Amino acid sequence: MGSDHSPNLLLDAIENYALSIPDDIQLVVIGTPNWAKANCSVKFHPCAEFIGMGENPLHALRHKRKSSIAIGLRLLKEGAIDAFVSAGNTGALVSSAKMILGLFPNLSRPALLALMPTKKGTVAVLDVGANLQEKSSLLVQFAYLGAAYQKIQGIDTPRAGLLNIGSEPLKGTSERRLAYQKLNNINAAPFDFKGNFEGKSIFDGEIDVLVTDGFTGNVFLKTAEGITSFILDQLNSQSSKETLKTDDIAELRFRLYHTEYPGALLTGVKKTVIKCHGHANPENIIQGIKGAIEFTSNHFVQKLQKQYELTNPLPKT
Amino acid sequence: MGSDHSPNLLLDAIENYALSIPDDIQLVVIGTPNWAKANCSVKFHPCAEFIGMGENPLHALRHKRKSSIAIGLRLLKEGAIDAFVSAGNTGALVSSAKMILGLFPNLSRPALLALMPTKKGTVAVLDVGANLQEKSSLLVQFAYLGAAYQKIQGIDTPRAGLLNIGSEPLKGTSERRLAYQKLNNINAAPFDFKGNFEGKSIFDGEIDVLVTDGFTGNVFLKTAEGITSFILDQLNSQSSKETLKTDDIAELRFRLYHTEYPGALLTGVKKTVIKCHGHANPENIIQGIKGAIEFTSNHFVQKLQKQYELTNPLPKT
Repeated sequence: MGSDHSPNLLLDAIENYALSIPDDIQLVVIGTPNWAKANCSVKFHPCAEFIGMGENPLHALRHKRKSSIAIGLRLLKEGAIDAFVSAGNTGALVSSAKMILGLFPNLSRPALLALMPTKKGTVAVLDVGANLQEKSSLLVQFAYLGAAYQKIQGIDTPRAGLLNIGSEPLKGTSERRLAYQKLNNINAAPFDFKGNFEGKSIFDGEIDVLVTDGFTGNVFLKTAEGITSFILDQLNSQSSKETLKTDDIAELRFRLYHTEYPGALLTGVKKTVIKCHGHANPENIIQGIKGAIEFTSNHFVQKLQKQYELTNPLPKT
Repeated sequence: MGSDHSPNLLLDAIENYALSIPDDIQLVVIGTPNWAKANCSVKFHPCAEFIGMGENPLHALRHKRKSSIAIGLRLLKEGAIDAFVSAGNTGALVSSAKMILGLFPNLSRPALLALMPTKKGTVAVLDVGANLQEKSSLLVQFAYLGAAYQKIQGIDTPRAGLLNIGSEPLKGTSERRLAYQKLNNINAAPFDFKGNFEGKSIFDGEIDVLVTDGFTGNVFLKTAEGITSFILDQLNSQSSKETLKTDDIAELRFRLYHTEYPGALLTGVKKTVIKCHGHANPENIIQGIKGAIEFTSNHFVQKLQKQYELTNPLPKT
């Protein structure tokens, strides 16, 4: 409901997509009754209200208990659905998910995790927008969370880095410096801490997990997306127009957009929640649903919690 | 002295560059005596010590009064030189410049300003690393500072935006939200406040000034640089190799690197100070020197101060 695109358009796309998936997967759309369609092939679950993008998340959380986000998360909690995909208000989604679904033990806040392509593989970036304040103890927890994610992907000892404005240990804010110290001093960590990384060196592929606060992580993600679009448009409009293979550009654009558009996994909550961007178009939402189906089929979130609990010996601070 | 490249290499490049400039411009190199060269064509001003990249800026400021940065800024203050270019420790440079050169009236902290190309022009981004803490009153001052910069470039009413993680007024941290309110409520501002901008929309060219704190601004700048390099390398290495015009790529790479590599102007201090990145190679340093010469010839910093004083009616808070 909170997306920048009309619920009607999204519903059409979802209905169309539903035709292509196995019968044992059922899609449920949660929206205000005015968007319900006659003879719709996907299940429509009505909600009384929804939370707008500009609303204060905590206010909405308290006063809109019948919003699409609140209802979806309760259905998820009760087991009526297995995964929840939303393009709505991030703050409201994250706070509600934390409250309704609960967090992994020894974790203070969930983190949105996005995958970014690099010259050598894929780096898991977290947090990309669930929490806006920088806190060293949280950054350390995110290193464990990101490492658990990459371990499930088959990386035995994920290499972790801290997003910063220089590589030296003393660089950055006081919380960043504290996080560096803490990460550097962990005994028998499930990850190999490689130190501070600047935005420019992340694409070299020297790390598997990039730890950051949600505000900076979000700027990182969206800047990468913005400049990708800018560069590819520039190359397309230049004299190389006729000589540049549009296939290559399209593929690269897809890979880089891929970071945000299938949606970020809300890691740290006990069920599968995918956050799509508010600008996400119908095709992007379908990618988010595909991601949700894949995570659910693989019991990914259960594995993630197990891995996190196994590797994180730190009490919550 | 604090650069990642050998002072020897930098000195060679500067010596070579000195041959190409008019006789009335004199280059002065400040370094420890061990780097002095016999029969050098540029003036060498010895310093007793220098501040390393990993050093605590405030400690260095207090205890290394004979460092290249301290000596260079004092020469600048005394009028023995007209501009100072450094690739050294940012924190030490900024704090020393503030203390030794003094700030514009009604300004709390200086800001590093970098220029970023967009689809329609150039956006002045500040701060890109002088101050790491986010404070709404400072963000407002930076809007005035950036507007003064763009006014001198011929833009009558610069359009200003706030770097944020969404366009809605309530997005972001509490300081961001406060800055939005303040910027939105100024009467007769010398800029047209266009609201919040995400990293992805900045390249559309809808604003002339992008206001942000130094940490996030630095991440923004370096991510743009990193992804540029990544994309262009990818396109080069793909099958398009033979069909892609390398001229176009080189030109685009230059334009995007240009944001950081000629160095950022330290705006808000009363003399011309250019900060080059620590990784800056000899060629980049020469670009920084060229920028310094141009700013000095145009009396840019004096104009900037005049413009800032003229347009900023706010007392320092």
